[in-house]
Amino acid sequence: MRMLPLLTALLLAAPATAAETPPPRTMQQVIADAKPGDWRALAPEDTLYLDLPGGRVVIELAPAFAPLHAGNIRTLVRQRYFDGLAILRVQDNFVTQWGDPDAEDAAKARSHGKALRRVAPEFTRAAAGLPFTRLPDGDVYAPEAGFSAGFPAGRDPASGQAWLAHCYGMVGAGRDNAPDSGSGAELYVVIGHAPRQLDRNIALVGRVVQGMELLAALPRGTGPLGFYEKPEQRLAIRSVRLAADLPEDQRLPLEALRTDTATFTTLVEARRNRRDDWYLAPAGKIELCNVPLPVRRRPDPA
Amino acid sequence: MRMLPLLTALLLAAPATAAETPPPRTMQQVIADAKPGDWRALAPEDTLYLDLPGGRVVIELAPAFAPLHAGNIRTLVRQRYFDGLAILRVQDNFVTQWGDPDAEDAAKARSHGKALRRVAPEFTRAAAGLPFTRLPDGDVYAPEAGFSAGFPAGRDPASGQAWLAHCYGMVGAGRDNAPDSGSGAELYVVIGHAPRQLDRNIALVGRVVQGMELLAALPRGTGPLGFYEKPEQRLAIRSVRLAADLPEDQRLPLEALRTDTATFTTLVEARRNRRDDWYLAPAGKIELCNVPLPVRRRPDPA
Repeated sequence: MRMLPLLTALLLAAPATAAETPPPRTMQQVIADAKPGDWRALAPEDTLYLDLPGGRVVIELAPAFAPLHAGNIRTLVRQRYFDGLAILRVQDNFVTQWGDPDAEDAAKARSHGKALRRVAPEFTRAAAGLPFTRLPDGDVYAPEAGFSAGFPAGRDPASGQAWLAHCYGMVGAGRDNAPDSGSGAELYVVIGHAPRQLDRNIALVGRVVQGMELLAALPRGTGPLGFYEKPEQRLAIRSVRLAADLPEDQRLPLEALRTDTATFTTLVEARRNRRDDWYLAPAGKIELCNVPLPVRRRPDPA
Repeated sequence: MRMLPLLTALLLAAPATAAETPPPRTMQQVIADAKPGDWRALAPEDTLYLDLPGGRVVIELAPAFAPLHAGNIRTLVRQRYFDGLAILRVQDNFVTQWGDPDAEDAAKARSHGKALRRVAPEFTRAAAGLPFTRLPDGDVYAPEAGFSAGFPAGRDPASGQAWLAHCYGMVGAGRDNAPDSGSGAELYVVIGHAPRQLDRNIALVGRVVQGMELLAALPRGTGPLGFYEKPEQRLAIRSVRLAADLPEDQRLPLEALRTDTATFTTLVEARRNRRDDWYLAPAGKIELCNVPLPVRRRPDPA
């Protein structure tokens, strides 16, 4: 089947070689060879289960970058704020967005309860003290690009600031023109080419680590900005739960590959220069949002 | 509604200003102010109508970069090769791919008729003689990035080569490991973050100029590489036609904004620095695949 080879690096081992030095490994081999310590369990306090009619989306929050938004989202979730709300907007090559259809109607809007209605901007933070695995190939938007605690990020040595990057699957808190008008009650996820112009303009709060296809393959809205024009077009949210609030046996045992390990650096190199036979001209470079961030189910103890 | 401001530049005029110099214009204003000569009609010989149950996808071929593939695709289309074939693969954040489900089965594969089964690689071409509107902000993958005759492209002064870039909506010809194993009989379109590592490794043949959502919002395949596992999951292709083969009154009067005009350069600047009130920190930069390529219906003569 044509094009199958396109992603062979994901499926096949590299061809055997007689060289004395070990052959370069594909991403799949690097992941297979990862040590248990190369993986980190998702923190239950930072893991959201967004349950839709089609299945479950798992979101990891990024409290290192947006602690106030993460806290407010936890408060909303624990009040069952999102249960029964809906996906309101799907704009092709941009975002899928969910929240309260009546948010702007004071009479009908769902109460935020103990949660804040306005959260201070968390668009950038001090880079000091943040782990940062820098990529070697530069970035159009940020002076430095890399990964911090599993999330794609930008960094500026001149300002001493760091920020999360709007890569595919990143989740943010919608806001109006006022910088503090976002609260986490309306969230969006990037479903197209990275809209990096949003970086440093809005609070990213986490990323989808499982079930992204449930948000990316939805019918596009036909109204302005991809909003659904009729209420019946909206997809209802069954529930949003924090893993920490579920009994242990109901939590998904997910682990993410640590981005501060030699294994991750080797993986990046494997993607900068694809080793499988299909590639004739390995790029020799990689852009921030093309770096895979592997997530797996924790292996059962042998 | 929160997040509505996200794309205000697409909908609203910039706030009025008392400044003597004209205020910077939003993309929407730049497009509204474009002169008739800033637009080019799509050439009927280079325009494909891919008709799916959900509607029509319009693809513009790029014969300047892939003349042999474009010619072979025209031959296949004129033989009705694609009619009744199917969408075979939808891999999240990568590609949607269509062609003959039985392509690998000599007994059942549809004949290519007068079309070639193997087309010489057209992965790069000489940059000499190509128009090239270079972007000012650099690129991770290409020494130079810009636009040539309406398509996103990379260029390397050292090698004297140029090539089309794998941006969202770009269409390519699947191939196996052999460089000449593609023919245009199996095509893919980018539906996620630009997989630029494919640049210079496979022939891009054009881009989707209308109806992208019909290819991007399809259910993801659950087999390896996003192939559909059951034949009934595949979406049937009603027909593929070349605009040139239809009576004039059945052709869509589409025009694309020329990329070699001052208007386009102004549009790029409007996107590098968003002028609407929502943006607090305009990027001041733009990456190749984030530059919009406006297409419109030719205005009726007043």
